[in-house]
Amino acid sequence: MNKVSVFRKEHFNAAHRLHNESLSADENARLFGRCNYPNYHGHNYDLIVQVTGEIDPVTGYVMDLKVLSDLISEQVLERFDHKNLNLDTEEFRNLNPTAENIAVVIYNRLRPFIDHTKELKIRLYETERNFVEYPG
Amino acid sequence: MNKVSVFRKEHFNAAHRLHNESLSADENARLFGRCNYPNYHGHNYDLIVQVTGEIDPVTGYVMDLKVLSDLISEQVLERFDHKNLNLDTEEFRNLNPTAENIAVVIYNRLRPFIDHTKELKIRLYETERNFVEYPG
Amino acid sequence: MNKVSVFRKEHFNAAHRLHNESLSADENARLFGRCNYPNYHGHNYDLIVQVTGEIDPVTGYVMDLKVLSDLISEQVLERFDHKNLNLDTEEFRNLNPTAENIAVVIYNRLRPFIDHTKELKIRLYETERNFVEYPG
Amino acid sequence: MNKVSVFRKEHFNAAHRLHNESLSADENARLFGRCNYPNYHGHNYDLIVQVTGEIDPVTGYVMDLKVLSDLISEQVLERFDHKNLNLDTEEFRNLNPTAENIAVVIYNRLRPFIDHTKELKIRLYETERNFVEYPG
Amino acid sequence: MNKVSVFRKEHFNAAHRLHNESLSADENARLFGRCNYPNYHGHNYDLIVQVTGEIDPVTGYVMDLKVLSDLISEQVLERFDHKNLNLDTEEFRNLNPTAENIAVVIYNRLRPFIDHTKELKIRLYETERNFVEYPG
Amino acid sequence: MNKVSVFRKEHFNAAHRLHNESLSADENARLFGRCNYPNYHGHNYDLIVQVTGEIDPVTGYVMDLKVLSDLISEQVLERFDHKNLNLDTEEFRNLNPTAENIAVVIYNRLRPFIDHTKELKIRLYETERNFVEYPG
Repeated sequence: MNKVSVFRKEHFNAAHRLHNESLSADENARLFGRCNYPNYHGHNYDLIVQVTGEIDPVTGYVMDLKVLSDLISEQVLERFDHKNLNLDTEEFRNLNPTAENIAVVIYNRLRPFIDHTKELKIRLYETERNFVEYPG
Repeated sequence: MNKVSVFRKEHFNAAHRLHNESLSADENARLFGRCNYPNYHGHNYDLIVQVTGEIDPVTGYVMDLKVLSDLISEQVLERFDHKNLNLDTEEFRNLNPTAENIAVVIYNRLRPFIDHTKELKIRLYETERNFVEYPG
Repeated sequence: MNKVSVFRKEHFNAAHRLHNESLSADENARLFGRCNYPNYHGHNYDLIVQVTGEIDPVTGYVMDLKVLSDLISEQVLERFDHKNLNLDTEEFRNLNPTAENIAVVIYNRLRPFIDHTKELKIRLYETERNFVEYPG
Repeated sequence: MNKVSVFRKEHFNAAHRLHNESLSADENARLFGRCNYPNYHGHNYDLIVQVTGEIDPVTGYVMDLKVLSDLISEQVLERFDHKNLNLDTEEFRNLNPTAENIAVVIYNRLRPFIDHTKELKIRLYETERNFVEYPG
Repeated sequence: MNKVSVFRKEHFNAAHRLHNESLSADENARLFGRCNYPNYHGHNYDLIVQVTGEIDPVTGYVMDLKVLSDLISEQVLERFDHKNLNLDTEEFRNLNPTAENIAVVIYNRLRPFIDHTKELKIRLYETERNFVEYPG
Repeated sequence: MNKVSVFRKEHFNAAHRLHNESLSADENARLFGRCNYPNYHGHNYDLIVQVTGEIDPVTGYVMDLKVLSDLISEQVLERFDHKNLNLDTEEFRNLNPTAENIAVVIYNRLRPFIDHTKELKIRLYETERNFVEYPG
């Protein structure tokens, strides 16, 4: 049978700063511009989690979106919402919190909890005009 | 020549209830929660139909979106708009009207009317935060 | 001091049918068209609650939007979400559940819980293209 | 002649933390919850500036929205975009940066530059679901 | 009884150019910038028509939004949709088609057809970021 | 390493008319309907440019979205914004400016400036309900 994707949209608000500690202050300013300002800025991150698989004939679901929503809350929102990504999280202590890296981190946090027969893809909006997608 | 996708967005409003008649009332309540309430609830369904193929050099179109819009009206909106999916439609008399199943049914209703050289994909938003995609 | 408005957006999904029992079936069909279909249809209702008053100098808030969100959940969402407005609610047993009437009902449910020095206004979207506003 | 309103939408990204220094840590935590976390979080602020007045018969404009956009950039975005409102701005050194207070501050920064025959109103979205409006 | 507003959103696509024939070419270029380019540009105009009045106790409507939608189609969309406002319409032959002026023209076209006991207000989006409102 | 996509959304406003000069007036009217009106109409085009590749471990970027935004401004917006596509551009002098063809033209203009190890995809919204995608 053909596969169907289901999507759940969530959001979280966080502060961050783009900075690579192995580079000079000048180089950081050149690479990251306003995003390198020392005291952090922040975003309303919109997160869309896509799970792809076959429809379960009993439920008519690929995956219960309530279950997916709870999983995202536990694994992502509890960890990142209203946090400073650089200061408050282990994941970004030594990893620059670009949208690309945040999407990969979210993928890796969710992947163990999604049935291995199903595919997972992450889309993350940093703003309405800047966003990323990671298919694993 | 490379292929281009064209998309047309339409919407319809319908009532439904998630329920599997072969399961007990308790099991239905456990699986579907509020979506199993007996007297139905409803949604503004946003439907995006994607058709992929080569551009016709005479028109510059992959497919005239006015023609696609009319086709969606005839095959989908006339049938489902302002209806109770469980009670008023043949398709969901014995099929649980989850977003996944509705997307598959819409795909199957449209596929015979789309040129066989073209691909068809369905995206259906049950809410802004819960949606599905079916590529056939 | 000048007043500030704060707004909280929530949503609920419900089934309804427009129908006036004191009119004939023909008259109902003429007045309400597809919205009068007997087995109900439904909507994703987007609700925006506006509270206007002075800023509390201690908190910097007109009203804590978390408190407002909880109040809307208790008084509106718990009552109407995933319900059939005509069948499952006292409010619309004898009142046609048009967007106008739903907005007035929501206003009247919330008004006693909002500080009487503050103004309350309700905006309700039945669809993205049809919506209403009630300032009390 | 009757008056017309013109609106210009802009946005900025900033970090902030809700905190009242004259209250205890416990009281701050109780009042502001997750918004009081010590290391800041952030938002994509959407700002809508409304100017109301008569149409100039020569231009057909109430106010040139390019001029208004440039004014917002100079007076608001240059000052707040990619900044930490608590640490990097004079305005919020001793004023809690709630959406209400930010809207009032923006109003006061723009008011001197808008023709005094015209009315000014500020709408500020902290998130899609939490927003405020200040009419001066 | 208190009044309720109902809103209907429609859209049309049109070309236009901002130009005042009584001014020099240089003055037009200075005033209107890119909007003065000689061969026209265009917009997807989003139009929101607001009608305010008392709820009819028989229907539960302030005004049937299907009737309002049909009226907008006849009086506005048929006239302006897919047209060049400067060349194809009487209204803007000698009136600069700024958003402000278009809103006033739409108001004046609709006003005779709306019950005189009801208020009418027009909101017109030229783009998502530039819009106007005319309350008559 | 797995690849990540980054997306940048921009927009431009343009006039156009669908017309194939090698066909008769009647045939053009039949094929393109209102879009063939002689004096042009217009749109707010929303453009989403997607670039796919590996994350640079130094920056955490697939591609700096500021650089991509500047590139889109130079290659697309400067050329098409506030222009009449049929009259003011070389690209559409002999090519019907359908959304499909505009997307292909934009792809071809951007492709030489995107690192050849990265994939490029174009999504173009002519309206909220009609849009196209070209993956090259």
